[in-house]
Amino acid sequence: MFTIGYAAISAGAPLAPFEFRRRQLRPNDVAIEILYCGVCHSDLHTVRNDWNWTVFPAVPGHEIVGRVIGIGSGVTRYRVGDSVAVGCLVDSCQECRHCHAGEEQFCLDGRGDTYNAPDRISGENNFGGYAKHIVVREEFVLRVPEGLDLSRTAPLLCAGITTYSPLRTWNAGPGSRVGVIGLGGLGHMAVKLAVALGADVTVLSRSRDKEADALHLGADRLLVSTDGDAMSRAAATFDLIIDTVPVKHDINPYLPLLKVDGTLVLVGQVGPLAEPSTVPLLLGRRRVAGSLIGGIRETQEMLDFCAKKNILPDCEMIRMEQINEAFERLERADVRYRFVIDMASLPAPVRACD
Amino acid sequence: MFTIGYAAISAGAPLAPFEFRRRQLRPNDVAIEILYCGVCHSDLHTVRNDWNWTVFPAVPGHEIVGRVIGIGSGVTRYRVGDSVAVGCLVDSCQECRHCHAGEEQFCLDGRGDTYNAPDRISGENNFGGYAKHIVVREEFVLRVPEGLDLSRTAPLLCAGITTYSPLRTWNAGPGSRVGVIGLGGLGHMAVKLAVALGADVTVLSRSRDKEADALHLGADRLLVSTDGDAMSRAAATFDLIIDTVPVKHDINPYLPLLKVDGTLVLVGQVGPLAEPSTVPLLLGRRRVAGSLIGGIRETQEMLDFCAKKNILPDCEMIRMEQINEAFERLERADVRYRFVIDMASLPAPVRACD
Repeated sequence: MFTIGYAAISAGAPLAPFEFRRRQLRPNDVAIEILYCGVCHSDLHTVRNDWNWTVFPAVPGHEIVGRVIGIGSGVTRYRVGDSVAVGCLVDSCQECRHCHAGEEQFCLDGRGDTYNAPDRISGENNFGGYAKHIVVREEFVLRVPEGLDLSRTAPLLCAGITTYSPLRTWNAGPGSRVGVIGLGGLGHMAVKLAVALGADVTVLSRSRDKEADALHLGADRLLVSTDGDAMSRAAATFDLIIDTVPVKHDINPYLPLLKVDGTLVLVGQVGPLAEPSTVPLLLGRRRVAGSLIGGIRETQEMLDFCAKKNILPDCEMIRMEQINEAFERLERADVRYRFVIDMASLPAPVRACD
Repeated sequence: MFTIGYAAISAGAPLAPFEFRRRQLRPNDVAIEILYCGVCHSDLHTVRNDWNWTVFPAVPGHEIVGRVIGIGSGVTRYRVGDSVAVGCLVDSCQECRHCHAGEEQFCLDGRGDTYNAPDRISGENNFGGYAKHIVVREEFVLRVPEGLDLSRTAPLLCAGITTYSPLRTWNAGPGSRVGVIGLGGLGHMAVKLAVALGADVTVLSRSRDKEADALHLGADRLLVSTDGDAMSRAAATFDLIIDTVPVKHDINPYLPLLKVDGTLVLVGQVGPLAEPSTVPLLLGRRRVAGSLIGGIRETQEMLDFCAKKNILPDCEMIRMEQINEAFERLERADVRYRFVIDMASLPAPVRACD
């Protein structure tokens, strides 16, 4: 089918309207009319080619919520009219041990990213969710449970699962103490999810400016990371720290906060860290880890958990044509906490669907 | 009692004979005649004040093997004549959750190091095992099991437990693949212990020079870390890597070798690491951790395991007066793989025991 989206045609070019064709439905494909798409920092990195792996034209977007408008002949899980979602993954081999374990993000044959990655069959570059429609194989389509507000669900598909997965992997729950570094799109979800899981939650911030926001999101307290006395008093009290900072930074101030066997999990930065010291690692058998989104099974679990606990991101709705301005504001961290594009603002493609 | 040891009187001064008094036996103390003491890289760091925390005069040595020559009135576990050992710890609070868990190295009140640390009661600086005698509370005295060659047991007390503990913590055993970086005092023990635990063991080295040594120690293979093709083929195949490198280094080449959820454990370097990239951490939920010696219970378990499996370090015996030359050779990594001081080479103190 023909559809329309917003694409960058080269590194740093502003996003602009772009008509393109979605593939004809394969037997296991679901065609989705996109209603909302969240704006992730990765989208900005991609259109700017910050990671030197962008294929242009690039249509970003991997926090997708919409409605089923068509299904392939073999689709069994979805019907036209269903409320569905698509996250960062649209394919994997389905055969390796990680796919069998429901962790398609670690597929040994290479995960299939929603955008800026080749389709496994055609080899064509995938286009993401800044568009009116998308076609995805049913195994990678999520069901939006009853009761979740569709207009605020989209950010769960990346910011939500990216923070939910490490909270679950490292057993955040009643009796555990969780710290969150960085109060942006990912960080605010980490706070809400950790609170909902029953953990005691502390936001770590360089100043007290975000204290009211942190408490409003449900955190038990804010700890000022530049306050040496407060940091010393908090030494060896955290089981888990979720570090959402998306730039190169120094984790050394945070490591002593972990208990013996505690873990700091990086989910924001893709690239170098400042030199860490081994001393706090040795002295407390502490660990530093990374975590990457989550598998399809866990993403569905997260959506169901959010519906049950009524957890939604704090969103600012924008129109599609505001995306370049939104990117500028995102860069300044001037959003609480996630932009969501209302895809109704995007006119239908000029060419009719085929 | 009066005894004699070898001490550095200031940073960088050569070790020289030094007579001093060991404390009168407290009710729970064991007096030990030291027969052998291993030479650890930490000893050299300490006498040079590399870590800026040395109190002089400094008597190093925390790989101690000897014979009980006296016991306090309340001692129940040991008798005169027993073969015993002392490692890196001689005290802890015995009351915190880590002491109760048998992990005195993480004592919340501060572990009591064998040397260069204050005695918990008197506050006096502890002197280590480069000496004829030592007095240690019985809870920190290990039993040398029947069958272990006393002359080669000493290095187990630091090099042995430092590598055994992470192998056990991260479940090395049949079916697991373990890498060892650095083939020195710690590394050669990591290989022997991992092999004895049933793991598949690979030594990682910058050249093929150490291949025969690695195989002789029991490793299944040597992987040349500068061979890009070989490293690529080995990607995502290790469950655990024990990194014994004792200087600042770059762990980035090794991280992709780990499977999903695999861990690289640092046991050698005390200080900064070169900037790590988060990318291999994120892409495989990989972890970097530190580990610090082991608790008393685990140290005894390790000694019993080594006796049962007949595992001993490869040692080069030296006389006490050769220690400064041994330090020079240690710095050049010119030892296979651990110096052990034969304390019979040290004359008795001039003053009689009191």
